[in-house]
Amino acid sequence: MTYCLAISTAHGLVFASDSRTNAGLDDISVHGKMHSFIWEGDRFLTLLSAGSLATTQAVIKRLREDAAGTGHSLLSMPSMAAVADYVGGLSTEIQRHHSGRDTASTNFESTFILGGQIGTAAPALYLIYPQGNYIHSSSAQPFFQIGEFKYGKPILDRVIGENTTLEDAARCALVSIDSTMRSNLTVGPPIELHLYPRNSLKKGRYLQLDQDDDFWRELSNSWSIGLNRALGELPPFSWEQADQPPSIRSISQS
Amino acid sequence: MTYCLAISTAHGLVFASDSRTNAGLDDISVHGKMHSFIWEGDRFLTLLSAGSLATTQAVIKRLREDAAGTGHSLLSMPSMAAVADYVGGLSTEIQRHHSGRDTASTNFESTFILGGQIGTAAPALYLIYPQGNYIHSSSAQPFFQIGEFKYGKPILDRVIGENTTLEDAARCALVSIDSTMRSNLTVGPPIELHLYPRNSLKKGRYLQLDQDDDFWRELSNSWSIGLNRALGELPPFSWEQADQPPSIRSISQS
Repeated sequence: MTYCLAISTAHGLVFASDSRTNAGLDDISVHGKMHSFIWEGDRFLTLLSAGSLATTQAVIKRLREDAAGTGHSLLSMPSMAAVADYVGGLSTEIQRHHSGRDTASTNFESTFILGGQIGTAAPALYLIYPQGNYIHSSSAQPFFQIGEFKYGKPILDRVIGENTTLEDAARCALVSIDSTMRSNLTVGPPIELHLYPRNSLKKGRYLQLDQDDDFWRELSNSWSIGLNRALGELPPFSWEQADQPPSIRSISQS
Repeated sequence: MTYCLAISTAHGLVFASDSRTNAGLDDISVHGKMHSFIWEGDRFLTLLSAGSLATTQAVIKRLREDAAGTGHSLLSMPSMAAVADYVGGLSTEIQRHHSGRDTASTNFESTFILGGQIGTAAPALYLIYPQGNYIHSSSAQPFFQIGEFKYGKPILDRVIGENTTLEDAARCALVSIDSTMRSNLTVGPPIELHLYPRNSLKKGRYLQLDQDDDFWRELSNSWSIGLNRALGELPPFSWEQADQPPSIRSISQS
């Protein structure tokens, strides 16, 4: 399985993805799911992918080939919506190609999150469905998730807003992925993280974090401590002593 | 859909469940999913249910009818394992009855969490599958969840341990349900909560909480504040000013 997410705030975009790929529980490997296409000063584009790795790789390969040519390509698209439509078209074309020679009922579907900025237009996020159609983010829907999204959704629902800084959004994304990895074995390190500051039109801050990375471990420990403290400070039930300070009720397990 | 969970710690058992039932998105109603059977001083038994409401109601009805008779019943079972086997048998019998006259391919499956204590034996939790077989809890698996379980699992994974008090486990269960309700419309109030202190062999603390309940609202707000503070105190990225205190980085959105 997979877990990728992208967040849009007034400050720019954040992308995060795990790297675990599995074809059955006994066939697990590591493949990056974050692919950036950057023409500095003109456009910044990043794709996150979930679903069939074969379809994803074929789409990425076609995007790179097209960009090296002179026809329709990521570089020639006038808008983020046009890029979403172009990627959706490639994805369905490749799925149709493989379905046409399939002898079983194989699932060739891939889902993409597209994020980026073209020129002076606002940065945008798109969720591109396996069917090739797509939706864009909004202030009411400032993030998209693909893959094993449920474990890591509550923290995003509670925290992400228009004014969240890129760094806070990035920490929230890491917590969302950390929680998912703890609860589901099919999501795994290394984690890729990319912070794109609005209007920069170049590669932003990029990190690749492994589970034994000091920062990752510090973040995960700090989060456990913070969660347990938040729990320890929840209101007491009516039958608990009203004069008992919250600290006595705090939980020790991390 | 549904979300129910039960937690076992050294101090006893905690049960929590939502009350939303839906047959399609436009056919939503309220049905309790927590059913207790108590013979004070002898045994305390509680069932949580997910899946076909018809099957669940038929199982509960049979349990009550049997308990009023003199044959095999919840009252005559010598152990929690025997109760799990008995409930699993009733569930599969009822499913078979309805499948036998089904003209479509209807899903009659129900899943149960059974928890309780019989006499001087230790309290125990069982997860009873639709197939009638079952597993029990352990120190490595101190909680069971049924229904929409993913949203609310990370907090349980991080917090629940052998020594967690019943009240802390209950608050954690409420947070787990609150997070699920915020992220998924098919889980809804009122919430039922039951705390069973080990060796009490009688009804424990029982609460029914609606979304406009003061305690529920206070708990949910307190949790949002605590989560945001925990996020604000996560370690800074290497490029952030090292001398910038965490409080400046804290997030305002609740």
